[in-house]
This record gives sequence, structure tokens and C-alpha cells, in this order.
Amino acid sequence: MSRDTDKPRLFVECGLEAGARVAIDRAQAHYLGHVMRRGIGDPLLVFNGRDGEWRARMDELGKGGGALIVAEATRPQASDSDIWVLFAPVKRSPIDRIAREATELGASRLAPVLTQHTVARRINTHRLRANAREAAEQCGRLSVPDVTNPVSLAAALETWPAERRLLVADETGAGEAVADVLIALGRERPVPPSAILTGPEGGFAPGELDALDDLPFATRVRLGPRILRAETAILSALACWQALVGDWRDGGAAPGGP
Amino acid sequence: MSRDTDKPRLFVECGLEAGARVAIDRAQAHYLGHVMRRGIGDPLLVFNGRDGEWRARMDELGKGGGALIVAEATRPQASDSDIWVLFAPVKRSPIDRIAREATELGASRLAPVLTQHTVARRINTHRLRANAREAAEQCGRLSVPDVTNPVSLAAALETWPAERRLLVADETGAGEAVADVLIALGRERPVPPSAILTGPEGGFAPGELDALDDLPFATRVRLGPRILRAETAILSALACWQALVGDWRDGGAAPGGP
Repeated sequence: MSRDTDKPRLFVECGLEAGARVAIDRAQAHYLGHVMRRGIGDPLLVFNGRDGEWRARMDELGKGGGALIVAEATRPQASDSDIWVLFAPVKRSPIDRIAREATELGASRLAPVLTQHTVARRINTHRLRANAREAAEQCGRLSVPDVTNPVSLAAALETWPAERRLLVADETGAGEAVADVLIALGRERPVPPSAILTGPEGGFAPGELDALDDLPFATRVRLGPRILRAETAILSALACWQALVGDWRDGGAAPGGP
Repeated sequence: MSRDTDKPRLFVECGLEAGARVAIDRAQAHYLGHVMRRGIGDPLLVFNGRDGEWRARMDELGKGGGALIVAEATRPQASDSDIWVLFAPVKRSPIDRIAREATELGASRLAPVLTQHTVARRINTHRLRANAREAAEQCGRLSVPDVTNPVSLAAALETWPAERRLLVADETGAGEAVADVLIALGRERPVPPSAILTGPEGGFAPGELDALDDLPFATRVRLGPRILRAETAILSALACWQALVGDWRDGGAAPGGP
């Protein structure tokens, strides 16, 4: 699939075909013009849930709305996985969730690492620790994860303990299916200590992925066909790890020690 | 393990033993007195990451701090799963995440259901739909999940399609390990359509769990030994489902249809 993340993607209601002119509303015009800073002639992608994904160009853009001209199809419509989510509503959740939820999901260490494309370089580790502690208090844990100070990815890898497996959430889609990797990992005895690594919003730099490929302890894993935000990727990979390797298993041999 | 969620749990730094007097700081005193509305003599649980979990009672509570008296041990210290999380920092994430992330994780329907203990009964489905739509735009999906209007759990179950499996995230810890259930589900051909159900902050009422046990399509699943917040439970169960049953598998036979 196209992971052309530099093009804005819009959901529209109307039918899509080559040459169609599609009106966009005020909110979409604001998003394209002010948030994404696009203008007349700029390319984008549109879909409607029925006709697949299409390339389009901005044809008109004003304060109250605008219009696109649809060009050619990029992907046919595919049938979705049929999985529902029924949930009892909860109140708006606070931020600083990675620390909180990785704590709930049993991470033993939270380590901010700075990659080439990382934009958020000022990390409030004090607040991360406060969140991890509060989550540990509420989730029933008997410990608080270790929150380390930010280091560069290169520095983290230079001092890497050789026996610790590193699962790299590879947003290019080139890695192995995460379930296959984790089922194999969960069968090893003793279960090796592990780590999950996710990239920033902009993804890993190609040189970073190449460097990871050269490391015997690192494995690229794929988290499905959709582009996950970093926090979704972290927590998904961690949940899968716990389910297949960690302490969510029946009689699971969770690796011990810090 | 104790899932005694009505008792506040505090992480403290000092050593814990029977009869010890433990000072608590201003923030903890505020949390206990004003957020949790506890007073002198009230029970709580404390842990320090080394000495297990202990019952304690409030002995002193003021604006600037307070003190607890430690009573008896409730659980010995256990070794943690050894799983690290390395992550490229991201900016503060927005709320309304269930709709957003369930969309990223490929849910086909988002259905708020009102259970007996559900506190948040006013659901802004318009905003949920807006979030689902925005997430679909950004994650590369070709569809937007169907967001249904809130109904009672009883009503949702009354009209349940018999062939659709319902995985109930059971916070009592009594369910089957989620990986076992999902590995078996992923081997069925055709892969049955599925749904995940999570309860509110207060959990399901006992009568609700009993009623679910009587339904041939429902299975209680356990998401590990820690108490997950509802949103963590939803997204974890969904990620595991996609990894083992859905479209994250290599050659996975994702069930089709609406």
C-alpha cells in the first residue's frame, strides 16, 4: 500500500471517479490550508469508503470551503477486517499516556530515544516518572518502571546488552508479522529479555533502519497495514508482547530481573 | 491477586514492615483526602517496589502531608516481566483516543454500550465520528468505522448476530488467556466475525458477567495481571486480535463484510 504520508488524506462523502470535482467543507479547507499549509494545485489523496483511494489536486481553497479535482485511482477498495469494538464510555483521558499505559502494560523500563527525525527533543522525564508512578499505583503493580534520561538511538545501541532482543516497530511495512516473531520468542527457554523500539511521527531514517538490520539482536516487526501513530504502535506492540511472551500467558514464563 | 480497587494504592519510597509508620507527602495527602475523599482510619494499600504490597491505615492527614501505619502484607514482591519500551518522544496526544486508535487498529464498528456501572452516559457520537473519520484519513484506511448510537448492554446482546464471537475483557481475571482464545479463533475457517467488549471504570456488575456466561457466542478473556484502564484494555485486546486473527498476520484470513 502507499504510505505516502506527505500527502494529506481526506475522507469525503461523494462518489469518486477520474475528473470528478469534489467540494470540501470549511473544516477540511481549514485543515488543508492552515494546518497542512497546502494551496491550489497541491496533491492529496481522497477516499469515501466505497470507491478506493484516488489522487486529487486542490482546485479552489477559501475560508468557507473549497474543491478538489479527482485524478487517478491509487488503490482499489478492499474489504475490512470485521472486528467490532463495544465499549463502556469513559471520560476524556489525560495525556502523558505512553508512560501511564506502558506502565499498566507491564513495561520494566521506559527509555526515550532521540532519532534523526525526532521533533520533540525536550523530554520532561520528571513528568514521565510521575505518570509512571501514578499508573503503577492504580494498576496493581508492585514496582514502577525505570524511566531513563533521553539518549540518541546510536548511543542506546552502542551499549546494548547482547542478550536482549530488540523488536523494531517498522512503519515501512517491511518487517515480519509481529505475531510470528512473538510466538517464536515465547517458545524460547529461557525467555530472552526484550525491548520494543518505535520511531517518531516521521518514521526512522533509512540509515537508521539499515544500521538496525546489521545488529544481531534486532528484528523488524510489522504492525499491520495501517499507519499507526507512535503511541498506538508502542502500546499495541507491548500488548502483543505481553499476550504472547509476557505475563498475560497461562503459565507464561515471563523473564525476570531488571 | 487482589483487585481490591476500592482501596487507594500508593507507591512510597521507604521500607515496609508491619507496624511501620510511613510519611506521605503533600500531593499524596491531597489525592487521598480530596480526590479519593478518605480520612483517618481508612484502609489503603502501599508498595515500594521491593517489599511487596501491604495493607495500611491513614493515621494522620493534613494539608501539608500525613502518615500511614502499615498493617499486614497482602502480596509478596514478584519479579516483573523484563520488557523495555524505547520510544521516540511524541507531543502530547489528544483525547478522544478510543475512536481514533480503534480506527487505526482497524475496528469496523465502534459501539458505545451502557452497562450498570457506566458513569459517562452522555456520549457525543458526533465527536466520536469526527475522530474516527480524522484517524481514518491519517492512517491509510479506505473506510471509516461505523459509530453506533449508545444502547444498553442488554439491548446490544438481545439483537446479537449468533455467528459473531464476543470477547469480553474480564477485569476480574477469571477469563481465559487472551492469546489462547485468539490463536484458536485465528485457526477457524472461515474466520468468524468478532467483537471485543470492555467494561467501564467500575467493571461489569456480577449479574452482567453471569448473563454473558450464558451466551454461546461470548468468551471471557483475561488481559494479564494488572488492572487496565478501559481504553488500554480496548486497544490492547484489539491489537492482539489483529496480530493473531486479523490483518496483521502473514496471509491472515481477515473476515470480510460489514
